[in-house]
Amino acid sequence: MEKNRMEAFSDGVLAIIITIMVLEIKVPETGEGRFSDLLPFVPKFLSYLLSFVYVGLYWNNHHHMLQSCKKVNGKVLWANLHLLFWLSLFPFTTAWVGEHHDSSAPLAIYGLVLLMAAFAWIILLQTLIDANGRNNILAKAVENKTLKEKISPFIYLAGIVCSFFIPWLAIIFYTITAIIWIVPDQRIERALNNSEAEG
Amino acid sequence: MEKNRMEAFSDGVLAIIITIMVLEIKVPETGEGRFSDLLPFVPKFLSYLLSFVYVGLYWNNHHHMLQSCKKVNGKVLWANLHLLFWLSLFPFTTAWVGEHHDSSAPLAIYGLVLLMAAFAWIILLQTLIDANGRNNILAKAVENKTLKEKISPFIYLAGIVCSFFIPWLAIIFYTITAIIWIVPDQRIERALNNSEAEG
Amino acid sequence: MEKNRMEAFSDGVLAIIITIMVLEIKVPETGEGRFSDLLPFVPKFLSYLLSFVYVGLYWNNHHHMLQSCKKVNGKVLWANLHLLFWLSLFPFTTAWVGEHHDSSAPLAIYGLVLLMAAFAWIILLQTLIDANGRNNILAKAVENKTLKEKISPFIYLAGIVCSFFIPWLAIIFYTITAIIWIVPDQRIERALNNSEAEG
Amino acid sequence: MEKNRMEAFSDGVLAIIITIMVLEIKVPETGEGRFSDLLPFVPKFLSYLLSFVYVGLYWNNHHHMLQSCKKVNGKVLWANLHLLFWLSLFPFTTAWVGEHHDSSAPLAIYGLVLLMAAFAWIILLQTLIDANGRNNILAKAVENKTLKEKISPFIYLAGIVCSFFIPWLAIIFYTITAIIWIVPDQRIERALNNSEAEG
Repeated sequence: MEKNRMEAFSDGVLAIIITIMVLEIKVPETGEGRFSDLLPFVPKFLSYLLSFVYVGLYWNNHHHMLQSCKKVNGKVLWANLHLLFWLSLFPFTTAWVGEHHDSSAPLAIYGLVLLMAAFAWIILLQTLIDANGRNNILAKAVENKTLKEKISPFIYLAGIVCSFFIPWLAIIFYTITAIIWIVPDQRIERALNNSEAEG
Repeated sequence: MEKNRMEAFSDGVLAIIITIMVLEIKVPETGEGRFSDLLPFVPKFLSYLLSFVYVGLYWNNHHHMLQSCKKVNGKVLWANLHLLFWLSLFPFTTAWVGEHHDSSAPLAIYGLVLLMAAFAWIILLQTLIDANGRNNILAKAVENKTLKEKISPFIYLAGIVCSFFIPWLAIIFYTITAIIWIVPDQRIERALNNSEAEG
Repeated sequence: MEKNRMEAFSDGVLAIIITIMVLEIKVPETGEGRFSDLLPFVPKFLSYLLSFVYVGLYWNNHHHMLQSCKKVNGKVLWANLHLLFWLSLFPFTTAWVGEHHDSSAPLAIYGLVLLMAAFAWIILLQTLIDANGRNNILAKAVENKTLKEKISPFIYLAGIVCSFFIPWLAIIFYTITAIIWIVPDQRIERALNNSEAEG
Repeated sequence: MEKNRMEAFSDGVLAIIITIMVLEIKVPETGEGRFSDLLPFVPKFLSYLLSFVYVGLYWNNHHHMLQSCKKVNGKVLWANLHLLFWLSLFPFTTAWVGEHHDSSAPLAIYGLVLLMAAFAWIILLQTLIDANGRNNILAKAVENKTLKEKISPFIYLAGIVCSFFIPWLAIIFYTITAIIWIVPDQRIERALNNSEAEG
């Protein structure tokens, strides 16, 4: 019950975040309805696409993570709000990168928010494991950190550093991380299937 | 469970898309509260109405499609996000058409996003059938493609081509497709009823 | 199941409508943080308050109406979308009235949208009764139209006419209707209680 | 059932409120993508953070409060809408404080909306207790008011008064109240656990 409402609230916030990001792609006011009016929107569109994938990733993994848990408590609720806080900054950082995709500051801040969201995710995971016990499916599933989990924060960090020297390389780093994460967390899915098979 | 949350998230995103489109119809700032201030809003209102019907159609059919399935997996989740991505561009294309309803570019892009959403729909349908098996109600229901399914992509395509030569004809094409789709997919409803009667 | 998703989608749309109306009350950009900066917001605030009550009313009664039904079908879904369409215009009419509360056009359009939403409500009610049968709780509950149901459309109409001659009187009419409706539909609640007592 | 829909609607509204507040943090249009462009956003960011915590608090406590109830009635629905009305003004007051964090008027209005939301909360709590009976878990849980409940309105009031003389002190007061409330209401959680243990 409690878990359901936390899921519903998170779904609501993520649905809004993913949708209001597109509001930045505004109708060109001075345009005359030509295709060339869309040119300034190309970087905005691409930054929207990247952030859409990131929010989709978080929604997808959030979904899988909660499926393998039974209990939530006060700490989990706040850890979840903490994650949503960083994700709620995506529309801002996305818009700023879309506006200045070759400047250091927007790209560094974009990476910083990604990094903070990744930390918030780890905290949420930990509070969920604490609330559900070491023997829970989730705890077992995440026992062995995969390579991508270990290196993601470092890629974000590399991206942040890069943004000061070779801005376009930062974008490459952020895109690579999205791609390596796009496969849903197989471990949790497998663990769930195993537990169903055993049960 | 998993299916429910995918439905809830899709409902959230579709509810937001359908509602934020109306934000484009802004209070005329320079107006003095006369009826004539509404004149520039007539094309915007009509483009909003058309897109409202399209989002309503997608919601309605999404609803019917998922009702006849039991399982969703990682691929389905991403196919669903892919559909939502194209639908999330509706507010932009709707606003652009509302601003320049007699220009080629906005009408062509409007049709292109409709076409991409239609493709995304077909992909989602396919992943759902793959996840639920060939013997599922859904698979049987969509076995025989109806005429409207076969011709819709071609009408969108015709609309896109038309927008370069006779813009208003493109609008007619997009409107016709909405009208022929407004009847909910009888096949799925019938198949569901049959399966209930048999069960 | 089907009913639940229609409720969830309607809740989503109504939640967004009620919340984005407040976006019209924007921070005074030229202001210097004085109380007097709020003066131009007084009519906007009051028009927001009135519309908030109306959306609250629709949500509340929607809630009661659906509680007393079991089935929804394709027609109900479209009748519901039709109602949501008119309600989705509230943010626009509210903002326009807030900007020009003493002009005829905004007040007449505000009343017109109220009237159309009232008609859409009656259509939705009728499709629900058709879908659930004459013996349904809902059909019985609404058998005898109450006075307020009979006169509401006429008050809206009176408000629309008034807005051309005595604008402030139109506001009074719209406010009165909200007040007489603020009590939830006792008949349905009573009928539900009776049916529970009998069952 | 009825309770679930009220929760879902509240979740929707709160999710939108918490997310649209961030829209105030807009991309600096005249900026050139430098870190210094973010400087004017520091107070906006901090006021967003404070309001995010407040909405999170209301969501969290709303959640706990409803978990310990079974019934809702017409009065509860309106008391809930009344609370949502005041919370819906958060994006406005947050943006105004973010714009003029050292002015009296925005800080006083910010505190006034906090105070009104606190009153709306007390009214909602009372209507819920009336609807569920004196012997309900909720009624027992809130029997003995904790210190923080008793003093919160006075801290808001102190903040409002302060804002006219020492603006920054008002911010301190509002922040302190958020911090003392951030711990979820242990009494209700304990009462729920007790009732489960007894049941």
